[in-house]
Amino acid sequence: MGEEVSNKQIVLKNYVIDFPKESDMLLKKTIIKLKVPEDSLNSILVKNLYLSCDPYMRNRMSKREDSYIDSFTPDYPITGYGVATVVDSAHPNFKKGDLVWGITGWEEYSLIKSPETIFKIQNMDVPLSYYTGILGMPGITAYFGFYEVCSPKKGEFVYVSAASGAVGQLVGQFAKLLGCYVVGSAGSKEKVNLLKNNFGFDDAFNYKEEPDLSEALKRYFPNGIDIYFDNVGGKMLDAVLINMRLHGRIAVCGMISQYNMKQPEGVHNLFCLITKRIRMEGFLVRDYYHLYPKFLETILPKIIEGKIKYVEDTAEGLESAPGALLGLFSGRNVGKQVVVIAHE
Amino acid sequence: MGEEVSNKQIVLKNYVIDFPKESDMLLKKTIIKLKVPEDSLNSILVKNLYLSCDPYMRNRMSKREDSYIDSFTPDYPITGYGVATVVDSAHPNFKKGDLVWGITGWEEYSLIKSPETIFKIQNMDVPLSYYTGILGMPGITAYFGFYEVCSPKKGEFVYVSAASGAVGQLVGQFAKLLGCYVVGSAGSKEKVNLLKNNFGFDDAFNYKEEPDLSEALKRYFPNGIDIYFDNVGGKMLDAVLINMRLHGRIAVCGMISQYNMKQPEGVHNLFCLITKRIRMEGFLVRDYYHLYPKFLETILPKIIEGKIKYVEDTAEGLESAPGALLGLFSGRNVGKQVVVIAHE
Repeated sequence: MGEEVSNKQIVLKNYVIDFPKESDMLLKKTIIKLKVPEDSLNSILVKNLYLSCDPYMRNRMSKREDSYIDSFTPDYPITGYGVATVVDSAHPNFKKGDLVWGITGWEEYSLIKSPETIFKIQNMDVPLSYYTGILGMPGITAYFGFYEVCSPKKGEFVYVSAASGAVGQLVGQFAKLLGCYVVGSAGSKEKVNLLKNNFGFDDAFNYKEEPDLSEALKRYFPNGIDIYFDNVGGKMLDAVLINMRLHGRIAVCGMISQYNMKQPEGVHNLFCLITKRIRMEGFLVRDYYHLYPKFLETILPKIIEGKIKYVEDTAEGLESAPGALLGLFSGRNVGKQVVVIAHE
Repeated sequence: MGEEVSNKQIVLKNYVIDFPKESDMLLKKTIIKLKVPEDSLNSILVKNLYLSCDPYMRNRMSKREDSYIDSFTPDYPITGYGVATVVDSAHPNFKKGDLVWGITGWEEYSLIKSPETIFKIQNMDVPLSYYTGILGMPGITAYFGFYEVCSPKKGEFVYVSAASGAVGQLVGQFAKLLGCYVVGSAGSKEKVNLLKNNFGFDDAFNYKEEPDLSEALKRYFPNGIDIYFDNVGGKMLDAVLINMRLHGRIAVCGMISQYNMKQPEGVHNLFCLITKRIRMEGFLVRDYYHLYPKFLETILPKIIEGKIKYVEDTAEGLESAPGALLGLFSGRNVGKQVVVIAHE
């Protein structure tokens, strides 16, 4: 009938209004049977190994109607992307011992009732944790956001905000591989060094040290920006609009600067869209999951050959997960934020 | 050596800061020789017949650096689109008696030194004044803005703001011809009636009577908006963003609600671009002038067969031009605002 084991969980204590605190989440001790219940047709039971901290999760912490994504349910485990190993399966596509990535719970073991969003991991020549980032959701986001939404051409001037994050570091490297000139911004000297010395950005700056963002961009792009990969929104977006070139493109991937505000800031320079004939387009990674095999085929060899670098920031233990998630919003993480739950 | 005649002009008196006044323009009496000067190679001298009042002209009344278009020069005639007859020509493509449309001066006669932006009028089965609107710049704007920038499909839900204006009335009719469901907004009961009864919009509303624009849009588009043709920007754009459907498109044509503000209003709901994967794209008519012959071929038969309606608001005499121009910003005009300078 399945062994009973302890199953620690991180649950949402209550909906968050503005800036989330660690005390908005709670460690809860429960017990789980290591077997898919009889009535749970097509479900799988997994042991979680790595959890991914992603900015979009902030939106799920608030009570929202009509959102593109469900809010978390108070008292239930937070859910997010993760890497796991299958412990028991009632689904024909999965068997015990399979390694998988996809939406799982912030707990030691998860019963996944609709494994439609679960991908089987086939290649283990890279660290398993990579499937929370470069080989998972953020990687697919960066790849299709850059190649499909930005319509990039060799020699163009590309600007990436939140550039040392999971998505940003990849976008910059994709742009370099294509022969673009790439500048990134981040929030500390350490991150700026990472962009220049590790990821091969042509230049980088610390936006926190720039009293006038538009002037900063003018310095780094005296001839303007062809492509802006926007991860932050708000004031930075406003400054970019002024510095765009004719027929520029803005891929709107995220707006992390706005997620903890009750009312988002206003963007004032949209008239530039007309005068410079700019295309600004939002996208969600879920529209590109059917292209995952094509993505893997392209990206895996580049990682293995060392042509693409990847930096993770690792927190140990489920207990550290709330702090790791909140660190995203103060920019504490350097590189992709992962939480290790178990090493096997 | 050419007859000397009186040449009244409307000149800009001084640069405008916020809301322009009639006294910012001045009627000036000058004299002109009805002959292209010897040293003005390739110039043409025209007698102006119709002048066009267009919202974009507001931007030229302010002193701006780095704008997409030059500011007017104080003490010189305002320039804009118009219909004229050639009085004398030193350009091989034009001869005396030719009817033309394009950028001319707000005066009785104009010496046009670079007639690259002057189109010869070939078809006179329609009123000549139409070349300031439906067959001129606003027509080309509406046509390519809708068909190229909006990527419209039959059955889609289309919303047009400033819908009774020169561009809006055409966009709505193009959308109807394609089989879309079209709602327009305007600023008076008379205009709303025009939209419903003359231009064949499926529905229309007076935005000035709506305390909550987002609620109004929900009423007219309970299932959301696929295409927004934006002529106004500001608060309306913010309300539309909330009401867009997945994969919607926003063609940013103009932002007349913002032109008289010192600082444009902030737009707060851009996060919707991501969640709904919206493409928002600005455009300028100048990118489409090379397609003018194709445009004429399509549109002329539709006008002649009565399949496209067109409404003008006509002011008589150069003296009335400043008031007619300013009327655009209070919404006084009903339909395309034209000024008649001379009837032949």
